[in-house]
Amino acid sequence: MTTEEKPASRDGSGPARAVVLLSGGVDSATALAVARNEGFHCVALSFRYGQRHEIELHAARRVAQSLGVTDHRIVEIDLRQFGKSALTGDIEVPKNRPLEEMSSAIPVTYVPARNIIFLAYALALAEVTGSQAIFIGVNAIDYSGYPDCRPAFIQQFEEMARTGTQMGVEGRPVRIHAPLLYLSKAEIIRRGAALGVDYALTHSCYDPDAEGRACGQCDSCRLRKKGFAEAGIPDPAVYVSHAG
Amino acid sequence: MTTEEKPASRDGSGPARAVVLLSGGVDSATALAVARNEGFHCVALSFRYGQRHEIELHAARRVAQSLGVTDHRIVEIDLRQFGKSALTGDIEVPKNRPLEEMSSAIPVTYVPARNIIFLAYALALAEVTGSQAIFIGVNAIDYSGYPDCRPAFIQQFEEMARTGTQMGVEGRPVRIHAPLLYLSKAEIIRRGAALGVDYALTHSCYDPDAEGRACGQCDSCRLRKKGFAEAGIPDPAVYVSHAG
Repeated sequence: MTTEEKPASRDGSGPARAVVLLSGGVDSATALAVARNEGFHCVALSFRYGQRHEIELHAARRVAQSLGVTDHRIVEIDLRQFGKSALTGDIEVPKNRPLEEMSSAIPVTYVPARNIIFLAYALALAEVTGSQAIFIGVNAIDYSGYPDCRPAFIQQFEEMARTGTQMGVEGRPVRIHAPLLYLSKAEIIRRGAALGVDYALTHSCYDPDAEGRACGQCDSCRLRKKGFAEAGIPDPAVYVSHAG
Repeated sequence: MTTEEKPASRDGSGPARAVVLLSGGVDSATALAVARNEGFHCVALSFRYGQRHEIELHAARRVAQSLGVTDHRIVEIDLRQFGKSALTGDIEVPKNRPLEEMSSAIPVTYVPARNIIFLAYALALAEVTGSQAIFIGVNAIDYSGYPDCRPAFIQQFEEMARTGTQMGVEGRPVRIHAPLLYLSKAEIIRRGAALGVDYALTHSCYDPDAEGRACGQCDSCRLRKKGFAEAGIPDPAVYVSHAG
């Protein structure tokens, strides 16, 4: 879809709807801005899943509001009983590991099947809101080594959804849009900045302090800092200052 | 996999594990018995999803216990905010509709993306328990017209999971077993009876009364009654008696 033509809803009444997965980080905020720029009326979907960095939900609310979203749903899901991730359990969040290492190994911050669960809920919400698209801010370049951020995964999820949902069976399959898939973090930030995203509202850190300041050392902070540096745009995040 | 060879766990320590989706109805109870008979150590997974017929969770507990399951997880998910199904909302459960109609149209009891959400959670549980299989009791014959009970859907979900999970990436993909896929309800009941399933413990009705008695008139009750009748096995369910 080009940005020139605005999508219409299937029954011709008003703009087409899209469900946008919104974590409150740089990528999902940018994906929301892209969806809006393509003319979709956006329903935002966030999850409270026992994440350490629940402050990101506040960021998601601020981002949704700033981009004109009027329908933002926050779904409670409990991944903690499935344990085993540094984002939900009590494994230590790794700090200052080499950036090269990130895309070659699955990190302990991987939450089992997380994007699969998120996309499954997004599908359900797409069915009940009559949305013809789901936007997800995954990317395959600076992607931290998560298997559920890969292009083949997104494509196979879409195919599965075509077969397994009422909309698909009735010839109105939901398309999964991953507009950041092939962009570097710097390109994502440039794209979002051009679309008016206020990145001061976003939150990236896996391990913020009590005041919500970013650690600056986890994978997510380091990818963010590198992205802003390469984009030549000042990073508005507030970081804890570390000695050394 | 034949029933003669017992699956071994990948590290050779003890039997292989499987996650079994267990609703407490005839089909999932039979799928659990099949998994157990194939030599899997079973982890049962049920959901409290705002269903009208929450009594089925009691049935799931009884069934799990009777078939020797020691690890049974019940996950809370809230599909009610996604509305729109007779199983979770306040649409009337249809009664006494012709059986021929069931497989030709998607009924109002369809919960958007339900099996996709359930299988996504099962994948997460498979990852954290080191399970190499997921058993789901869907079938494509007497299947009430749900799109997420079709063979192509199961196959595509398995492919998506191979790409999108840590286990898949590491060459240990989870297999989705749907052992009832091509069986009629009567064949399912005969199979389960032969494996020692006590169907008196199961619950099928979408619209039970306050004492938990089955209505006998919803799609699920009618498929169940027809199945037991065709299998030549007495149905142990307790039905409300209707005048006329």
